[in-house]
Amino acid sequence: MPPLSSGLLGALDSTSDRAVFRQIADQLREAIDKGRFAEGDKLPSETELIEHYGVSRMTIRNSISVLQGEGLVASEHGKGVFVRPRPPVRRLASDRFARRHREQGKSAFTVEAEAVGGHSEVDSLVVREEKPSQDIATRLGGARKVLARRRRYLLDGRPVEFAVSYLPLDLARNTQIAEPNPGPGGIYARLEELGHRLDHFDEEISARMPTPEEIKTLRLASGVPVIHLIRTAYDTEGRPVEVCDTLMAADAYVLAYQLPAT
Amino acid sequence: MPPLSSGLLGALDSTSDRAVFRQIADQLREAIDKGRFAEGDKLPSETELIEHYGVSRMTIRNSISVLQGEGLVASEHGKGVFVRPRPPVRRLASDRFARRHREQGKSAFTVEAEAVGGHSEVDSLVVREEKPSQDIATRLGGARKVLARRRRYLLDGRPVEFAVSYLPLDLARNTQIAEPNPGPGGIYARLEELGHRLDHFDEEISARMPTPEEIKTLRLASGVPVIHLIRTAYDTEGRPVEVCDTLMAADAYVLAYQLPAT
Repeated sequence: MPPLSSGLLGALDSTSDRAVFRQIADQLREAIDKGRFAEGDKLPSETELIEHYGVSRMTIRNSISVLQGEGLVASEHGKGVFVRPRPPVRRLASDRFARRHREQGKSAFTVEAEAVGGHSEVDSLVVREEKPSQDIATRLGGARKVLARRRRYLLDGRPVEFAVSYLPLDLARNTQIAEPNPGPGGIYARLEELGHRLDHFDEEISARMPTPEEIKTLRLASGVPVIHLIRTAYDTEGRPVEVCDTLMAADAYVLAYQLPAT
Repeated sequence: MPPLSSGLLGALDSTSDRAVFRQIADQLREAIDKGRFAEGDKLPSETELIEHYGVSRMTIRNSISVLQGEGLVASEHGKGVFVRPRPPVRRLASDRFARRHREQGKSAFTVEAEAVGGHSEVDSLVVREEKPSQDIATRLGGARKVLARRRRYLLDGRPVEFAVSYLPLDLARNTQIAEPNPGPGGIYARLEELGHRLDHFDEEISARMPTPEEIKTLRLASGVPVIHLIRTAYDTEGRPVEVCDTLMAADAYVLAYQLPAT
């Protein structure tokens, strides 16, 4: 890191009505945005910043905490404060559920992981029969009992997604869909073999801050939201055959879609 | 609000290794999730919570601040802490750029606002020629100069979205697209009249915490992320004719898409 004297960070504006800790956060943010501090770079130490700006340790800590809240930096205990990586690890393409992938025996997650040259894993798999929430029941056309498949996805060892698939029990019971390993091509390939040829998927996307449980499950850094995606799969007869309720680490994803103009 | 004695909130677990302020936040969150406190409801006052749990004011404030950070509650100065509204005000449908809307002279924003029975407005409109960022230039197939249309969208007086449309200057200069009011059906209708029949739109979606400027522009409550959507419009010859860079208040939107299964 170049010395602070080189003009990496500016001076405070004593005539501004913007609080000093915010001015310092603004300058650090701008330096990150402009690439003066790159991903993985260590920010100047508290001591260096105190000296540079002539302010108290508490002021510097407030500034850093603003940037942490925005997800721009992460503090590593005893090592310092680092610029967080910003590019997504995965990009969800709009053809990710194309039949050709299923026919090659690949799941959507594998296809995407391969696209970024990453190693994908699934853990914490739990498959069980249960009574669905009102929302899930409605999406599944009034199903009273469902098969629920819960699992977590990891990319290169990092948890990036937690997903629960719900299927009407009359459809999934005593099939390979109820097994921990549903076989090549995943549950969509099995649904098609069972005569439910898939027609399209509806996806609904929203974003919010995670709960403490979700922070733990996805090992989220401070200031990182989650993307909540609910997908419903329809067969060619218009029947909803699966609802997948997914929570994604927002710093790990860009979702891509194509919309018709006609 | 029913009195606290009615079992609305439970007791603390003194054997738990979970910090007391987190236990209290957990109980309040659960009560909100289960609808015991509904949208717009006032939470019990600090004094009531202090009495109920037998803890200090600081502990209660820490608990409330956890929930604020998650976007679940908002503090109104001097009035108390309220459960924030959670349903989205707008749902972006996958047919929002269908030609039939343009032909009726409606913009996508108007169509969506009408769908939720809301009143839509646009303000802060600035139209100017500029040099695009590297990213925008690349998305527009290497455009060196662009026409940029910046504007903010409000729904029922609340800012929900800030958007910038970039168009190659050779295409937009001296057309109605360069006017503050581009006319019925918006710039997409004008592009089609100029011979650029639209074929499809690509959209990329990510989510992150807002910067202080963005918080101001969209008047965001604490703990509310932004959805970042970049849309590229292509004409039937495959030329990118517009990039729209949009920032949306995440508590105001659900985005809906349809994916093919084939």
